[in-house]
Amino acid sequence: MVNVAVLGYGTVGAGVVNVLMTNADMITRKVGTEVRVKYVLDLRDFPGTPVEDIVTHDFNDIANDADVNVVVETMGGLHPAYEFTKQALEAGKNVCTSNKELVAEFGVELCELATKHSVNYMFEASCGGGIPIIRALNTSLMGEKIEMVSGILNGTTNYIMTSMYEKSVDFATCLKEAQDLGYAELHPEADIEGHDAQRKIAILSSLAYGKHISYKDVPCQGITQIDTTDMAYAKKMGMKIKLLATSKVTEDGVWAMVAPKLVGPDMILYAVDDVLNAVYVEGNCLGPAMFYGSGAGSLPTASAVVSDILDCAQNLHTTVKKDITDELLPLLPLDDVKNTFFVRANDEAKVKAQFGEVEMIRVNDDEFGFWTKEMTEKEFKEKAKAAAIISFLRRG
Amino acid sequence: MVNVAVLGYGTVGAGVVNVLMTNADMITRKVGTEVRVKYVLDLRDFPGTPVEDIVTHDFNDIANDADVNVVVETMGGLHPAYEFTKQALEAGKNVCTSNKELVAEFGVELCELATKHSVNYMFEASCGGGIPIIRALNTSLMGEKIEMVSGILNGTTNYIMTSMYEKSVDFATCLKEAQDLGYAELHPEADIEGHDAQRKIAILSSLAYGKHISYKDVPCQGITQIDTTDMAYAKKMGMKIKLLATSKVTEDGVWAMVAPKLVGPDMILYAVDDVLNAVYVEGNCLGPAMFYGSGAGSLPTASAVVSDILDCAQNLHTTVKKDITDELLPLLPLDDVKNTFFVRANDEAKVKAQFGEVEMIRVNDDEFGFWTKEMTEKEFKEKAKAAAIISFLRRG
Repeated sequence: MVNVAVLGYGTVGAGVVNVLMTNADMITRKVGTEVRVKYVLDLRDFPGTPVEDIVTHDFNDIANDADVNVVVETMGGLHPAYEFTKQALEAGKNVCTSNKELVAEFGVELCELATKHSVNYMFEASCGGGIPIIRALNTSLMGEKIEMVSGILNGTTNYIMTSMYEKSVDFATCLKEAQDLGYAELHPEADIEGHDAQRKIAILSSLAYGKHISYKDVPCQGITQIDTTDMAYAKKMGMKIKLLATSKVTEDGVWAMVAPKLVGPDMILYAVDDVLNAVYVEGNCLGPAMFYGSGAGSLPTASAVVSDILDCAQNLHTTVKKDITDELLPLLPLDDVKNTFFVRANDEAKVKAQFGEVEMIRVNDDEFGFWTKEMTEKEFKEKAKAAAIISFLRRG
Repeated sequence: MVNVAVLGYGTVGAGVVNVLMTNADMITRKVGTEVRVKYVLDLRDFPGTPVEDIVTHDFNDIANDADVNVVVETMGGLHPAYEFTKQALEAGKNVCTSNKELVAEFGVELCELATKHSVNYMFEASCGGGIPIIRALNTSLMGEKIEMVSGILNGTTNYIMTSMYEKSVDFATCLKEAQDLGYAELHPEADIEGHDAQRKIAILSSLAYGKHISYKDVPCQGITQIDTTDMAYAKKMGMKIKLLATSKVTEDGVWAMVAPKLVGPDMILYAVDDVLNAVYVEGNCLGPAMFYGSGAGSLPTASAVVSDILDCAQNLHTTVKKDITDELLPLLPLDDVKNTFFVRANDEAKVKAQFGEVEMIRVNDDEFGFWTKEMTEKEFKEKAKAAAIISFLRRG
């Protein structure tokens, strides 16, 4: 018998209980023993639900119960999630989490603490919801030198981008619609400003490159500035606009950024629409690979947590290897990163003076768009300023 | 030190040696010990190559060397691969393979033999080349009830389908081109008749559903009958034709088949072109997921073999769990499988008598196409015969 305690009976926590119950027979057969939810920690009670009798309001009930082998932290936020996780690991319990804030901020420390106590701190659900990318990076891609990670890591923003594209309506309308459908939160800043994707790409890149990338070092731009004219240009060029969270190994160093980018059908990420997420990876021997699935939602995210619980259930007192370290990977300054830029402008003479002859693309009479040659962000910014451009997007 | 012996220094075998050498430093760091190629078994010698001094022509050199921990079988074919694999497992050595024929035919027996000797028989490279789908089914998706597996599992046929679609040229021309480019073999029957995909879907489905599916039970149709008119219809409908290897859990039972099918942009497999492969999976909690990458080629396939070698290196004397059994899963007879069919015909009256009013789609003056309602294969075949149709394709 493996005993699980779930901290926080919200969307994901309730999903975990649901998955463990729904697939109980199969899980027992595969793990070779029953995986039971012994506690649910929450401030609320849940009378009339299956967890009615196992709710506790005191974390010490869980920490002090030697029978609890796996603690599932689906509370979100930094505190008290951090303190509870530490206490659980120190008590020799495995911890599985969907909490990307905590993993991005304290992941290295908590993994080291888990190793010290011969248990595991697992976080498959922290990036890409149900997409099994973390375990792939830790196991299947272990022999690969990863050279690039680029993901559509936020369902809310991908839904809005898809909706703006397909219906040709503006950002505010699509955001409102996403909120009404429950795809966007009432306070959607973390999603639409890119901060959610920023944490996720920091976690994925740290695992991919074997050194720590601090999410605070990743330049981050959201989708709030994208307008219907941008979408019209994208359509005219047969491209889409996606919020990409990317990191890449170059000769000059590793760069990372979160930004809306123009993506053509030659990139497989072009096909990832609506609330779906995907992570594209390039390995030095493997070449291109992509992992695609539901990036959010109760059951898909819970499914990822459950995969961690089952991994822990088979390694209750053995730390499963992962390549994680507190050695910081300094990122290439954004100014030094090279890209090609799609520019919207309305002063032909100034554009010509800065960028030379360009091929103009028009979707209305007030302005034109064009692609630059490859250049550094610094060079581009200087030229863009001098050319008094309207706005720009990078190529994905 | 982990000592590896590679059986067969062909495309994949040489790739494995290449990956292990290229990424040696990183692999040593991650595994915690050196992973060294001690032998290469081949009929040929390789003077002037890095394996010059480690070539042997006698498998007993490997079987009798207690230092060899992992045997890599990249010979292909059933014999002597089967005998060598058995002998290696019985000598307490782990075996990693890219040999789908052997896995499809003797996989269950060889896994049981491995378990008996507390070692592993691993075959990540047998399906989907570099795509890490086998390990995902065994680990990340362990807690899921898989309800569907559908893959583009053969690079040769996907290249031909993409080429016919994009260039509007006929099958024979595209096959010839694929052969010239090295994407198709001189004797391409195993690929173009679907037998390669048939073995792969049997392997994947067995792992997904936890019972054994014999590849011989999977109805199989290749792409040799697809002509430029089929492609014209597909284009007109905004769809593509893909050779899909699919299995699905239904209320009536599990069906499986390999057949060319019409796929619309609402399916993510639509975006998988050229020699790329992908496996789409639906789990009862996870929902949709897709794994995408290089389905063939020396380094990508070798990368998958190396992921198995590294898994073995960390579990030299422990059998890593996988859900594999010799209990046969009887498949639903093809006649009972339900689908919608795209039909090409030229006798309007007969079509109307059998299928009722249909919406006709035309790409030339000699015939028309239409979609049927959902019906069983048996019902469709009877109607199709009576309506004297030209040909048909299923919906993917």
